[in-house]
Amino acid sequence: MPLKSLLVQYSPAELLSRLARRHGAPAHKIPTGSEITDVAIDARWKALPLAHEARHELLDAQTHAQSSRYAANVENFIGTVKVPVGVIGPLRVNGTHAQEDYFVPLATTEATLVASYGRGAKLITSAGGCAALCVSEGIARAPGFAFRALHEAAVFAAWVLGAAPQLTEVAAGTSRYAHLQEVRVSLEGNHVYVILTFYTGDAAGQNMVTIATQAICEYLNSGSPVTPDYSFVEANHSGDKKASAQSALYGRGRSVTAEVVIPALAVREQLHTTPEMMAKLFTMGAIGGVMSGAMGVQCHFANGLAAMYLACGQDAASVAESAVGIARLEVMPDGALYGCVTLPNLPVGTVGGGTGLPSQKACLDILGLAGPGHANAFAEVCAAVALAGELSIAGALAAGEFSEAHRRLARGGRGALPS
Amino acid sequence: MPLKSLLVQYSPAELLSRLARRHGAPAHKIPTGSEITDVAIDARWKALPLAHEARHELLDAQTHAQSSRYAANVENFIGTVKVPVGVIGPLRVNGTHAQEDYFVPLATTEATLVASYGRGAKLITSAGGCAALCVSEGIARAPGFAFRALHEAAVFAAWVLGAAPQLTEVAAGTSRYAHLQEVRVSLEGNHVYVILTFYTGDAAGQNMVTIATQAICEYLNSGSPVTPDYSFVEANHSGDKKASAQSALYGRGRSVTAEVVIPALAVREQLHTTPEMMAKLFTMGAIGGVMSGAMGVQCHFANGLAAMYLACGQDAASVAESAVGIARLEVMPDGALYGCVTLPNLPVGTVGGGTGLPSQKACLDILGLAGPGHANAFAEVCAAVALAGELSIAGALAAGEFSEAHRRLARGGRGALPS
Amino acid sequence: MPLKSLLVQYSPAELLSRLARRHGAPAHKIPTGSEITDVAIDARWKALPLAHEARHELLDAQTHAQSSRYAANVENFIGTVKVPVGVIGPLRVNGTHAQEDYFVPLATTEATLVASYGRGAKLITSAGGCAALCVSEGIARAPGFAFRALHEAAVFAAWVLGAAPQLTEVAAGTSRYAHLQEVRVSLEGNHVYVILTFYTGDAAGQNMVTIATQAICEYLNSGSPVTPDYSFVEANHSGDKKASAQSALYGRGRSVTAEVVIPALAVREQLHTTPEMMAKLFTMGAIGGVMSGAMGVQCHFANGLAAMYLACGQDAASVAESAVGIARLEVMPDGALYGCVTLPNLPVGTVGGGTGLPSQKACLDILGLAGPGHANAFAEVCAAVALAGELSIAGALAAGEFSEAHRRLARGGRGALPS
Amino acid sequence: MPLKSLLVQYSPAELLSRLARRHGAPAHKIPTGSEITDVAIDARWKALPLAHEARHELLDAQTHAQSSRYAANVENFIGTVKVPVGVIGPLRVNGTHAQEDYFVPLATTEATLVASYGRGAKLITSAGGCAALCVSEGIARAPGFAFRALHEAAVFAAWVLGAAPQLTEVAAGTSRYAHLQEVRVSLEGNHVYVILTFYTGDAAGQNMVTIATQAICEYLNSGSPVTPDYSFVEANHSGDKKASAQSALYGRGRSVTAEVVIPALAVREQLHTTPEMMAKLFTMGAIGGVMSGAMGVQCHFANGLAAMYLACGQDAASVAESAVGIARLEVMPDGALYGCVTLPNLPVGTVGGGTGLPSQKACLDILGLAGPGHANAFAEVCAAVALAGELSIAGALAAGEFSEAHRRLARGGRGALPS
Repeated sequence: MPLKSLLVQYSPAELLSRLARRHGAPAHKIPTGSEITDVAIDARWKALPLAHEARHELLDAQTHAQSSRYAANVENFIGTVKVPVGVIGPLRVNGTHAQEDYFVPLATTEATLVASYGRGAKLITSAGGCAALCVSEGIARAPGFAFRALHEAAVFAAWVLGAAPQLTEVAAGTSRYAHLQEVRVSLEGNHVYVILTFYTGDAAGQNMVTIATQAICEYLNSGSPVTPDYSFVEANHSGDKKASAQSALYGRGRSVTAEVVIPALAVREQLHTTPEMMAKLFTMGAIGGVMSGAMGVQCHFANGLAAMYLACGQDAASVAESAVGIARLEVMPDGALYGCVTLPNLPVGTVGGGTGLPSQKACLDILGLAGPGHANAFAEVCAAVALAGELSIAGALAAGEFSEAHRRLARGGRGALPS
Repeated sequence: MPLKSLLVQYSPAELLSRLARRHGAPAHKIPTGSEITDVAIDARWKALPLAHEARHELLDAQTHAQSSRYAANVENFIGTVKVPVGVIGPLRVNGTHAQEDYFVPLATTEATLVASYGRGAKLITSAGGCAALCVSEGIARAPGFAFRALHEAAVFAAWVLGAAPQLTEVAAGTSRYAHLQEVRVSLEGNHVYVILTFYTGDAAGQNMVTIATQAICEYLNSGSPVTPDYSFVEANHSGDKKASAQSALYGRGRSVTAEVVIPALAVREQLHTTPEMMAKLFTMGAIGGVMSGAMGVQCHFANGLAAMYLACGQDAASVAESAVGIARLEVMPDGALYGCVTLPNLPVGTVGGGTGLPSQKACLDILGLAGPGHANAFAEVCAAVALAGELSIAGALAAGEFSEAHRRLARGGRGALPS
Repeated sequence: MPLKSLLVQYSPAELLSRLARRHGAPAHKIPTGSEITDVAIDARWKALPLAHEARHELLDAQTHAQSSRYAANVENFIGTVKVPVGVIGPLRVNGTHAQEDYFVPLATTEATLVASYGRGAKLITSAGGCAALCVSEGIARAPGFAFRALHEAAVFAAWVLGAAPQLTEVAAGTSRYAHLQEVRVSLEGNHVYVILTFYTGDAAGQNMVTIATQAICEYLNSGSPVTPDYSFVEANHSGDKKASAQSALYGRGRSVTAEVVIPALAVREQLHTTPEMMAKLFTMGAIGGVMSGAMGVQCHFANGLAAMYLACGQDAASVAESAVGIARLEVMPDGALYGCVTLPNLPVGTVGGGTGLPSQKACLDILGLAGPGHANAFAEVCAAVALAGELSIAGALAAGEFSEAHRRLARGGRGALPS
Repeated sequence: MPLKSLLVQYSPAELLSRLARRHGAPAHKIPTGSEITDVAIDARWKALPLAHEARHELLDAQTHAQSSRYAANVENFIGTVKVPVGVIGPLRVNGTHAQEDYFVPLATTEATLVASYGRGAKLITSAGGCAALCVSEGIARAPGFAFRALHEAAVFAAWVLGAAPQLTEVAAGTSRYAHLQEVRVSLEGNHVYVILTFYTGDAAGQNMVTIATQAICEYLNSGSPVTPDYSFVEANHSGDKKASAQSALYGRGRSVTAEVVIPALAVREQLHTTPEMMAKLFTMGAIGGVMSGAMGVQCHFANGLAAMYLACGQDAASVAESAVGIARLEVMPDGALYGCVTLPNLPVGTVGGGTGLPSQKACLDILGLAGPGHANAFAEVCAAVALAGELSIAGALAAGEFSEAHRRLARGGRGALPS
């Protein structure tokens, strides 16, 4: 219902009555906590009035048996939601870190996604694989400090910049993986934002850097030549969980760029179009994206990243920041298709977070990238997957097959994308 | 490893060798398709060399038993990934559509998230609930048309605007739920982007509008007084799966705004801080976000939305576009805290997509919002959840408790956030 | 001096002392007002302690003789600043409104600018001129209204949308040129932004719409079924004097698109490069702009627009919003260069503002576009100038001649850009 | 005329005929060049068919007498345009560099602007002046390099980062003022953008850095271990002449922040409103700006900066980038108004460019900031002027006097803004 007809449906008094506060006590209450015992789970389910059959679906036998393994990842636990996983590959990646033919598990409920990414992976592999380079890494946190006046803020900001070595030490004291690599300040009147960037080893590290930043804030608050009026451990200048120009420019998490060259014949046979047509689509799509006020230029990074994050125990909310970047398609002098993607903002890891949970760990095992030593390779595979997705969707759009695939697969039809 | 030291680790020749194409045939191949039979699943697992134990985790008994239910939602199926679900509530929503005390299932692997959102929900409910208003709805698709020259593009664009009634009919012919509500054009030299916005009933409707747009494109290509040189059914001007100013301004999916008033005493008792301190945080965070080049002003919409989308069978990739909006905190004249959120870009539904899958349907049942007639209410609950999350995180930051909660819960410690 | 070394140069106490308030009365005071008489001017100059010779430069004989003509355009008048004007052309424009070979006066103090734009104009004219189309017009103002609660805001917003015909009448009552063409509302919690778009005839119309909006606000405040708590006649949602996605998407002022086809031979002879090289530059520059977080994709619209606005009595501050748009360069199937520009945000006019001042009116006369009936044509010429500038700079960059031209002309060297 | 009615006014054939190329030779031609002699000027005027009286206005006696002084600033010279100058002040600035009561010349053709900024200046001075701090400086250029493949691009990028000392030397060889201070690289597939930031002394330095960058490019092209396929001296990643997130984040030109505290009584007496009301306006305006997709949060920086740039020989086109930043208004604990502005992107100078032209130099003399040693102070005064403008417009909007001032002064009425 559009806003315009709101007053057709409701009188102002009715609207007031619908939107007004209601003060009675709620009928039910959920027992909260991170405890996962049969008693605690049962008490929670008992409090859910509408959920007779739901329990069976969320708290299946295997989930029940493994339930204690979720205790450090969720509170108020009542079971698990099952997201179907399709696998694509082999996806050949020739990266500085990733050097394999990968089978990539993708978790999604959206028809066509796996088929489309799989088609792109096949195309890449048939062309000898894609090159990939993890260019940088670092997770940001940005505490904010308020002062009474600009001159105090300026003294503080200059002092902070000089104190970088001490801050590095403070951070190291909170975790052996938290290595402070850069300190920047942003002065806005009597406010100072301190932008801290950390290496976090093979963990995405968002919690790690929060704890390190808390320690740094305590050091700054107590050691500063001018005492802040107040401060916050995070003042929204870090790009955490949101698309931001800062993260696109400086990187957040791992930054990766990847490229592939596809012979014209393969484009014709596997995508049913030509490199020229795909280059035209690139131009129209790049300008279309810019005109719509999108950040970056790409088609659907979010699809592949969300599916891979979900399968592999990454933070699904990070899709909000990761789905920004550049995808470029061009015709090479010899008529082949050149494609590349650049993803500056992949806060991923292969330890910590959800990476150790049973089915997520299994997905990382399918990739061969579970545990320490694999985060850079994992990020390079993310970029390769994004590249596969861009090639496939661009091919489908250029060949005029995009909607047909959606029509067929979303209705449970057989087969992958036409190939 | 920073780029600067790349040449320390590798010589140019070594780098070339790592990044060069490798042309041998891959050792394994995945049998593809949307078929879900024991034979097909088994063949896929056999092709995964690293996955001996993984199969057990992804293809548990219940998943196996229900596997045919996933056939219209994924291709190359090998099992499911299990994402732990915590439940929060009751969350009282006084919306134009949502009018209940809701229990909200949140699927996440990130410690603290459920506890934090639960704390916010409790605060809102204790204050009589939040008001919520679904302001508009509509999903965009944006085909692009190329002409030989500007005058042709102009004739086409003007003709398209005049043909809106016919296009509405064409769309209606593809699905009884696809109602074209607006046609805009954007002229860029000899290129024309046609931005189509559809009502899609209680479905998120992204596939539905793709199919309707294909039919419209066929109509436009054949009926136009000037024949396009070429065209694409989507030219990246729709905001699909990405943060864009267009969707933030015009809305995409459902647009909702929600508000709550929290007495100062409740802020003090439940959040351990004051409305004044939270308002200071709002100002510093709003400016911090703007300075970081973020779209919109909010703290962590992505966390709650991703968890709710995942639990309830929404498209997780849409978090990339949904996590843009406004959260505002102020002190009221009587000293109470005023909080509101505005989310212009919620492409959600209660039918279609993943909403009918076993555990996802169960989560919608916990909410009481499964099936037709509930999409607007679901969108209003999304906004209420986002509001709960903003209140809780702002409270934790203002009270200086943010990192402590992360430290404790991420290590599996007991209890929710301090309350 | 970088911030880091601030404390090397100053002790905190010294910094405090430099930045502290100083409370003595100032030694001099400027007599203010919009009065322009010899006495008033003289009194102002007497109050300027450092300006012995300056007076002669600003208050030259002709300025002195014409000084009363500036009374409606400036306050505290002390003279005029002289900005050198170069003329380019003939620039052939084949527009819906502009249909001439134009000589375009450009006011600038930056060497190379006139030569570069002149080179582009010559190239366009030699190719038969550029096509140009004024696509839309409309100036926005956006008053803001605050309410006690969301339900009141919603009632108000819905009522405003229904009151559009009355608002049109109210606007018309303030000026016969102010025609309200669109009313949109944006609801954010208990705040409502009303975005009003007006036709303003041949005036840029920024003052006209402010006055009309004031009248509309009075109508809304007194007639609303719910009384706003407070309101502002402009709440920064109109895009006035700033780059904004809203103006880029919806247009603000005139929106124009223009294109030209340049034979490959002309590119080679006049720009010393090839269409292919210029297309490569376009791609690299488009992506470079996107990666830098620029709005739109173009090279230096600001240069030509600022110079033309200045010469022709437009509001120079509007360059902040006008310098956003799209410039696209491609190779045509026959090897020619295709170039087009799209400028959605040209708040220009040929009556009102500075257009009637002596030398500004003279510049409009050189164009043949002074006075009523010419605003659309003027906007189309703006786009043609922008196109000339993009072609010329792209040519210089692609040919490797960019810095050479700057080196030579900025030192007063002879000749235009190499041709 | 809206696009929709285009086909009402023209048939497709008529539109084609209006927009088609016209190939006859133009009737007139302008003799081009940077030569300024009576003969050259006369020849140009003779070629302007519509300009009988215009010549008198542009080529007045004083302009004629001084015409040779414009030779290094413009080509195809035909005279000067006169922009009226109003003066405001004294504006007390307590800056790290600016430490005076300044009289500030503002050149504009827009009524109210000088009066409004003057009112803000008076308010600031009455409160003891504003503090101001020039936080950083540096002008960016961003050449782009294309390679055949990613591994080459990576080797080049890493090599460039290691070659920073040599690049600094190369830059120094082109001008003793060009000091390269930072080298960053941005890798996008096989493309490398090199972002170079220079100190340029007291010049804005845009030409200087172009020449230095050309020399650096020659060094990079010849010295690189891998030869670029092609390169451009600027690839649009520098933020030059456009609003960009990069310049907002990193700064471009001088970055300044300034603040002032205004007693509540002064707000009441001079602005006829209260700090509380202005803080409400700030919040509504900040969110309004964000919702409109503006960069930064401010009201009308462009007005004051354009007027000051024009008067003082700065590059007016730079307003496109300078008019981005933050303005914040708050109520202090004691009830006073706190106001601050942050302008990260002021490419200004007091030598070079237009700063030595007769009337522009006179304006700098009025400020006392002509010539070497004054660029930082000039930037701090720019920020102080911006602050004055934000206070005054916010006061007018909060007091409900905004449109009244426009109505009166734009019609040549007497008096400044009500005070």
